[in-house]
Amino acid sequence: MKELLEQERLLINGTLDRLLPPSDTWPCTLHQAMRYAVLGGGKRIRPILARAAYRAAGGDPDLINEAAAALEMIHSYSLVHDDLPAMDDDVLRRGRETVHVAYDEATAILVGDALLTEGLLVLARHPVGQAWAVMRGQVIKIVAEAVSSRGMVGGQMEDLEAERESQELDANHTENAITLESRLELIHRHKTGCLLQASVEIGAVLAGVTADQRSPFLRYGQCLGLAFQVADDILDATASAEQLGKSPGKDAKSGKLTYVTLYGLDSARSQLNNLENEMIELAHGINSNDTTLAGLARFIARRTS
Amino acid sequence: MKELLEQERLLINGTLDRLLPPSDTWPCTLHQAMRYAVLGGGKRIRPILARAAYRAAGGDPDLINEAAAALEMIHSYSLVHDDLPAMDDDVLRRGRETVHVAYDEATAILVGDALLTEGLLVLARHPVGQAWAVMRGQVIKIVAEAVSSRGMVGGQMEDLEAERESQELDANHTENAITLESRLELIHRHKTGCLLQASVEIGAVLAGVTADQRSPFLRYGQCLGLAFQVADDILDATASAEQLGKSPGKDAKSGKLTYVTLYGLDSARSQLNNLENEMIELAHGINSNDTTLAGLARFIARRTS
Repeated sequence: MKELLEQERLLINGTLDRLLPPSDTWPCTLHQAMRYAVLGGGKRIRPILARAAYRAAGGDPDLINEAAAALEMIHSYSLVHDDLPAMDDDVLRRGRETVHVAYDEATAILVGDALLTEGLLVLARHPVGQAWAVMRGQVIKIVAEAVSSRGMVGGQMEDLEAERESQELDANHTENAITLESRLELIHRHKTGCLLQASVEIGAVLAGVTADQRSPFLRYGQCLGLAFQVADDILDATASAEQLGKSPGKDAKSGKLTYVTLYGLDSARSQLNNLENEMIELAHGINSNDTTLAGLARFIARRTS
Repeated sequence: MKELLEQERLLINGTLDRLLPPSDTWPCTLHQAMRYAVLGGGKRIRPILARAAYRAAGGDPDLINEAAAALEMIHSYSLVHDDLPAMDDDVLRRGRETVHVAYDEATAILVGDALLTEGLLVLARHPVGQAWAVMRGQVIKIVAEAVSSRGMVGGQMEDLEAERESQELDANHTENAITLESRLELIHRHKTGCLLQASVEIGAVLAGVTADQRSPFLRYGQCLGLAFQVADDILDATASAEQLGKSPGKDAKSGKLTYVTLYGLDSARSQLNNLENEMIELAHGINSNDTTLAGLARFIARRTS
């Protein structure tokens, strides 16, 4: 699995390098900063998921490389804006300075704007044959809806509000545990989950999986989104900056709502284990001959960085 | 013309109100802020232009109301981000507090992100018949390209860099006049021009105007983009805050590159007059029975707020 993921990353990085505007074309600084934001590292989970779903549905994943890369551009936009001083105020990302530190705040705002636009533009341009021409609108709708105010950006908004309120109402934590639980799931289902789920979904849609056969893909994507976030929260509480490539322990310090601060480490680990088992079962149901979706589930649930 | 514009605005505001997520749906604060950003006023030039081009090409403009409204969402996103403290740091817009003042900076970043996404989503969803299904990819490409790093966002980046450099190199202004002239045009052609031109273009594309008949529409759009900015610069130098609904005189104070600071007021006025004449000629060439495109040219060139 590790080897497969490494191959996938190389292939996706190659596609991203080809699709991103060259850094010597106007406006050079912006294009350099866009490349810095996208090409500096990262696990490429979303493109890998789209390709894996497409493969599990019986297609040759190289046919959807551009759409897969578009997902990574859109994910990178969300990281750049999320790291801004007015948002999470993070200085370290993927083992390097965040964009607003390496460049400046104005550039980081524009880099995020341009990457979101570019990702959707790549989807609108995607050249794969006649079938794609028909599916293009559908794919743009799925992705744009996933990162809209009812999706990813909504999750970021809820996260901001939860953080502010938790600082104001720290004493009431225990009494409000049930509300907090549902709020935590609301945040993560949207902030991380929607785009991860959309990545699996567009792999299936592009492979021609009909609407009534999509539910195992959708449920797999949903579980994966949650598992990803639970694993992230566990890592923030237990891993080092070197392992993570970003500042750890920030959640506890800022009083942020996470699976670990809310349920404790043991319960978070047990939830993660359940999600992993469900995903492996779903992956076998989708295609018992293909092991990539199951392998990804294991990888996401057990990652150490 | 004034009456027509007022009717257009009412119609577009109604479409925007219908398309924007309701403010009582999750995430409520974000949706309220999105509505605050879009529905608070504004001339609605881009939707009016798209409808006018569609009408001049022989179509019933009510068929493209949603696509027209999407342009206004995308324009509003650019204003919200442009007003941020790290960008132009403006506190007044369309006669009210800017979004980051009325809400806060994090919310304003997310409002911009969500409006860009929503605008492109509306284009991807646009329901007008079979013909639109074929043109949908083309329209999204035109609009996304217009606001990409090679378009509007590139112009904002160039504007930021020009402002910084002009503050550093104030003494060299006269020597660099030729470079400054081409830079000023580069900024405005992209920052304002690209989306205005795209607005005219998608009106023509949706009306079925073929690629080889689009050039007068494109040239009209290009002139209008420039005229809009020259008029803006003249107004910034001559009008009051009450007339403008935003803070005037900022350009001169910040040493910003404008048509007025570079060429002087008389030359800027004469350039604007030439652009107006060219647009009126183009409008007659497109459709001598339709007076809206010519009327808009006059309105843009002679506006006082």
